[in-house]
Amino acid sequence: MLKFFFSPQSCALASHIALEEAGADYEAVRVDFSKNEQRGAAYLKINPKGRVPALATDRGVLTETPAILFFIAQTHPAAKLAPLEDPFDLGRLQAFNAYLCSTVHVAHAHRMRGYRWADDPAAIDEMKRKVPQTVGDCFALIEAEMFEGPFVMGDAFTIADPYLFTLATWLEGDGVDPARFPKILAHRTRMAARPAVAKVWALHQ
Amino acid sequence: MLKFFFSPQSCALASHIALEEAGADYEAVRVDFSKNEQRGAAYLKINPKGRVPALATDRGVLTETPAILFFIAQTHPAAKLAPLEDPFDLGRLQAFNAYLCSTVHVAHAHRMRGYRWADDPAAIDEMKRKVPQTVGDCFALIEAEMFEGPFVMGDAFTIADPYLFTLATWLEGDGVDPARFPKILAHRTRMAARPAVAKVWALHQ
Ligand SMILES: N[C@@H](CCC(=O)N[C@@H](CS)C(=O)NCC(=O)O)C(=O)O
Ligand SMILES: N[C@@H](CCC(=O)N[C@@H](CS)C(=O)NCC(=O)O)C(=O)O
Repeated sequence: MLKFFFSPQSCALASHIALEEAGADYEAVRVDFSKNEQRGAAYLKINPKGRVPALATDRGVLTETPAILFFIAQTHPAAKLAPLEDPFDLGRLQAFNAYLCSTVHVAHAHRMRGYRWADDPAAIDEMKRKVPQTVGDCFALIEAEMFEGPFVMGDAFTIADPYLFTLATWLEGDGVDPARFPKILAHRTRMAARPAVAKVWALHQ
Repeated sequence: MLKFFFSPQSCALASHIALEEAGADYEAVRVDFSKNEQRGAAYLKINPKGRVPALATDRGVLTETPAILFFIAQTHPAAKLAPLEDPFDLGRLQAFNAYLCSTVHVAHAHRMRGYRWADDPAAIDEMKRKVPQTVGDCFALIEAEMFEGPFVMGDAFTIADPYLFTLATWLEGDGVDPARFPKILAHRTRMAARPAVAKVWALHQ
């Protein structure tokens, strides 16, 4: 059985929702950030990067949200969570997820984790100050250029949907008004109403 | 025919090498950063993010290094650039590439592109100062925990190899001594000697 390591309302929410949407057989294990468990010896044996999510399979551990999402889609083909056989459509989906992972999530991380890239408290404050702008710019681009509707990639629900949903739940905390992005906001509301999302969301409170 | 947009010695080098290793039929188009062409109206129509790489296909444009690399592997199966049918091995490969994209490349970007995340010049300088440490830490983790050898994923050459090679060519510029990472350094030397890599490298000078 799969063992899924998460922390509430972190980026692990995306993979958690995908596991549920896929009907996967898995056990969810909470990593307690308030106790710094992600940097404890036990967890570093699972994921030496000291981050969530991590997915322990019978062959070993997978990390990184886009990789875990793709693994869930590929191992649960009946759930049709990705256009696995269409290289172009799959490429667009992977590009969307790579943008969330490398640019949108990273912009957000400069609010609470600025110490990753600077030591001086003034510089860390200055990064925090710019987060509403950088995160806002990312979502403006998604709204204008990337989001197809009603789902991220168009008519089909894919692994991009729980990922966008997850990052969109951070908007208010990042000082960005979601009303600027009507399509993304409607998507967030629609996503929250899905049974799989509601079930997982409850576990993240 | 594929049209590939790159800038010399940028992260686009990875996809450029993969196209060559795959024996793809493509035309390479240079985007001139010294003229800020990546932010010009013509290029923004190709990639509204204003970044390289971008790969124009007969169905539309793909962006983001991990997505382009995977597309090349999937559309050129004879080149065997990824374990497409093994979800776990593929998941490990995708996790490796997602780490390069979201963490290693981002650590590096704080040296020359700190203005993405802060406006104050002192904060931008402070980010630059920390780059040798953050990039060094990433490569230390790759050397100790991720790199299998002789190729990134073990015996088979995959799309992870040109990607690691590309980021490893930035080490000296980032103020990190590559001699700290003997496996990665040997890989870099071995990669540079491959005919496809040598051919593409010459176009990036
Ligand atoms: N690139 C990774 C990023 C993972 C990541 O940064 N996770 C955060 C939670 S959103 C974390 O574990 N942070 C703990 C820490 O920094 O100590 C992914 O997409 O999965
Ligand atoms: N996540 C993207 C990042 C692309 C990226 O940042 N490319 C850089 C070159 S390494 C770029 O185009 N920079 C131009 C700029 O920032 O103006 C990927 O992995 O492809």
